[in-house]
Amino acid sequence: MKLYSYFRSSAAYRVRIALNLKGLSYETIPVHLLKEGGQQFSDSYRAVNPSQLVPTLVDNDVTVGQSIAILEYLEETHPQPPLLPTDAAGRARVRAIAQNIACDIHPLNNLRVLKYLKHELGQDDDARNGWYKHWIAVGLGAVEALLADHPDTGRFCHGDQPGYADACLVPQLFNARRMGCDTSAFPTIMRIDAACTELDAFCDAAPGSQPDSEG
Amino acid sequence: MKLYSYFRSSAAYRVRIALNLKGLSYETIPVHLLKEGGQQFSDSYRAVNPSQLVPTLVDNDVTVGQSIAILEYLEETHPQPPLLPTDAAGRARVRAIAQNIACDIHPLNNLRVLKYLKHELGQDDDARNGWYKHWIAVGLGAVEALLADHPDTGRFCHGDQPGYADACLVPQLFNARRMGCDTSAFPTIMRIDAACTELDAFCDAAPGSQPDSEG
Repeated sequence: MKLYSYFRSSAAYRVRIALNLKGLSYETIPVHLLKEGGQQFSDSYRAVNPSQLVPTLVDNDVTVGQSIAILEYLEETHPQPPLLPTDAAGRARVRAIAQNIACDIHPLNNLRVLKYLKHELGQDDDARNGWYKHWIAVGLGAVEALLADHPDTGRFCHGDQPGYADACLVPQLFNARRMGCDTSAFPTIMRIDAACTELDAFCDAAPGSQPDSEG
Repeated sequence: MKLYSYFRSSAAYRVRIALNLKGLSYETIPVHLLKEGGQQFSDSYRAVNPSQLVPTLVDNDVTVGQSIAILEYLEETHPQPPLLPTDAAGRARVRAIAQNIACDIHPLNNLRVLKYLKHELGQDDDARNGWYKHWIAVGLGAVEALLADHPDTGRFCHGDQPGYADACLVPQLFNARRMGCDTSAFPTIMRIDAACTELDAFCDAAPGSQPDSEG
């Protein structure tokens, strides 16, 4: 498999975690989101993924954009170890936690949005940082509420095996820390994040461990 | 089943379409996003859904927030008629199309974001409308590219039966039209939207057909 990836993309980071958890080897094809005006806007990448975002997974003749669609694809094509629980209620809980991150936090703080705020709306660093931290605080607050004191929360987001929701949570935490967000209101999230980062699957997927890392 | 819904919420609209396609009856519990400072912020609704967004589906003792998690839950618990194809590649294609909408368009144009642009960033009507139309144009452009000339595109997004991607596409088109966006660059999307709106499942899910509709 080939993964079009950018070391700092948290959507690509999710997929790298999932690939590692499933023990699947893959080739990284770096797409630098800042160089050359953004390599994601090249004709060659647009032919691979018309949304001009990373990641894209290529598995023989199957090309999948969208990180959550990729997680589902990996789960269906390589079921072991599972990243989703077996019961419909548990699967729904895990997907909802993941989508709180993938729909309600990450798209708002994506590079293209921050660029629009700067260039089209003339927002300065303080305003953009405030925007970033606002959606992190609101979004992680909701995730914390879904996790804290819930009987299905274990060492990880759902039980004692890492999975789909953890693969979304850890990259979002990485971003939050990088941007200096206050995470003290999210003790359950922080505990789960710490448990994840003890595992090679998560460490090896981190931005600093990628072939295109700039540190 | 009970659906916490707001007639104009396109995320709730997706779920209404899916429920209708599967022939499932449900009770609508309206959550007015504008009245009383936003009923989604009430303590009672926060206890149902800590993200304080609609929709939320309640199916006996299972509560699911996040529209895409709800679509997956309905597909798993009520498989007939299917909203996803049976092959992994087709399922990935459909999910990716849906997530181009659910992750890359809709969260950016959500009510809470438009309010932040107005109140925290001081953006006027023109700037906010420009923002709205920009993400619609970028996002639907990507969806059009995924659909146009693809062998799996049929009368609907994937083949000749309506499903998961159509349930996301039609509400986004409704929003685009309501905001006066130019949709002429998306002929395949417009053709599929027209095919969907011939079906009762889509018409009955439309904002104007809801018990809490304000027209």
